[in-house]
Amino acid sequence: MSRIYTAAVLVIGNEILSGRTQDANIGYLGRRLNELGIRLLEVRILPDLQSALVPALRRLKEDYDYLFTTGGIGPTHDDITVDCVAAAFERPVIEHPEARRLLEDYYGDRINDARLRMARTPEGAGLIENPVSRAPGIKIENVFVLAGVPRIMQAQFEALAPDLVGGLPMQSVSLPVAMPESEVAPGLGALQERYPDVEMGSYPYMRDGRVGTSLVLRATDEARLKAATDELRDLIAALGGGLDEDM
Amino acid sequence: MSRIYTAAVLVIGNEILSGRTQDANIGYLGRRLNELGIRLLEVRILPDLQSALVPALRRLKEDYDYLFTTGGIGPTHDDITVDCVAAAFERPVIEHPEARRLLEDYYGDRINDARLRMARTPEGAGLIENPVSRAPGIKIENVFVLAGVPRIMQAQFEALAPDLVGGLPMQSVSLPVAMPESEVAPGLGALQERYPDVEMGSYPYMRDGRVGTSLVLRATDEARLKAATDELRDLIAALGGGLDEDM
Repeated sequence: MSRIYTAAVLVIGNEILSGRTQDANIGYLGRRLNELGIRLLEVRILPDLQSALVPALRRLKEDYDYLFTTGGIGPTHDDITVDCVAAAFERPVIEHPEARRLLEDYYGDRINDARLRMARTPEGAGLIENPVSRAPGIKIENVFVLAGVPRIMQAQFEALAPDLVGGLPMQSVSLPVAMPESEVAPGLGALQERYPDVEMGSYPYMRDGRVGTSLVLRATDEARLKAATDELRDLIAALGGGLDEDM
Repeated sequence: MSRIYTAAVLVIGNEILSGRTQDANIGYLGRRLNELGIRLLEVRILPDLQSALVPALRRLKEDYDYLFTTGGIGPTHDDITVDCVAAAFERPVIEHPEARRLLEDYYGDRINDARLRMARTPEGAGLIENPVSRAPGIKIENVFVLAGVPRIMQAQFEALAPDLVGGLPMQSVSLPVAMPESEVAPGLGALQERYPDVEMGSYPYMRDGRVGTSLVLRATDEARLKAATDELRDLIAALGGGLDEDM
């Protein structure tokens, strides 16, 4: 059995906590990490307060194989991610020579102190390429510091993805069933007991006043996933239910 | 100065961590809590594992005035929220007589063991009305256990909202500016120093290859917010920038 690799994401964003902006990065990272055989097991969303961020960074980088942060790496006073990551590693913040060079090349005459703030990194950190707007992401041990703007975050993630070591990716099957989850619950629970290596989730939904249930099976072993799915289809048929065509 | 009331949200959902489903509850809760004068200061998203959920519940209910959970209160084997909340409070799980009566009234002949699982609560808990599908939410001390389906979660939240005690709501102003944030950074930082009671955030965006910045000011005191906003408008004009008409 292959080792399980785990990850956490720390979203740094007052604007998401206030409900002003809808996060668009968690779903992307969850899907892509899974494809790489890494399981996203925790997300925290915190405001840009050093007192909140430093303890969370310390904890999450210890508890998981990888930690990704999004947001708070721009040129303004509220961009404190670099300082917090440095504090979590008990390292000083330096101006990274290569980051400075990248920014000077990109901005030319328009370079200024605010833009040069984006060359600051914890001492000993490496850079993550940003093909969109140059200001680099930062990697330090198992922590990857990414932008908050989705287009930049995605480009940075794809630049670092080849360096991530993962295990077997989770395969998944989703069966939308036109019946309430309480009707499939006993059979699903019994099936789960016989397939402890297949994660079985049940997610109710409502559409036009009609109740349905998404049954989701996930496993790293394709044969076991197929066997469990076949049994689940039989169970649904035996209960007189059908797949929900509208999903 | 009025007291500041704080809240955390714990989203229980493998399907959000895997990227299969986009969360729709965090933004709603952030906005509504703010209107009630309560600040959402932390969100955690965790899978349905007792070993992950119980320590998080213990910590978050201690650290914040209010804790809201979403998800994991249905009839299937993967719905373990009630057991985890009970464990966090070191109380047994009981069948709540009023919850049982609600479910029996609603389901009639179609009541079954799976549905009756939704009458289980930690001992001493109260119920939160669910006008959509009857299965109630649960309140215990400062913890509110809500459904994951957005329509039900929202109805439960509105049923409990009149009982929440809050302070002054945050007012906010958002100015979308057609310039990169690094150009407004020095002036914004200086303004923030003169208005420590007004939160100033800067959020870059890209649209059709054009870079812009959303400047967001937030404060509980309307007069201070207006004064800071007026100064910020003057600053943007002095920098030769304008409001972004496309936003």
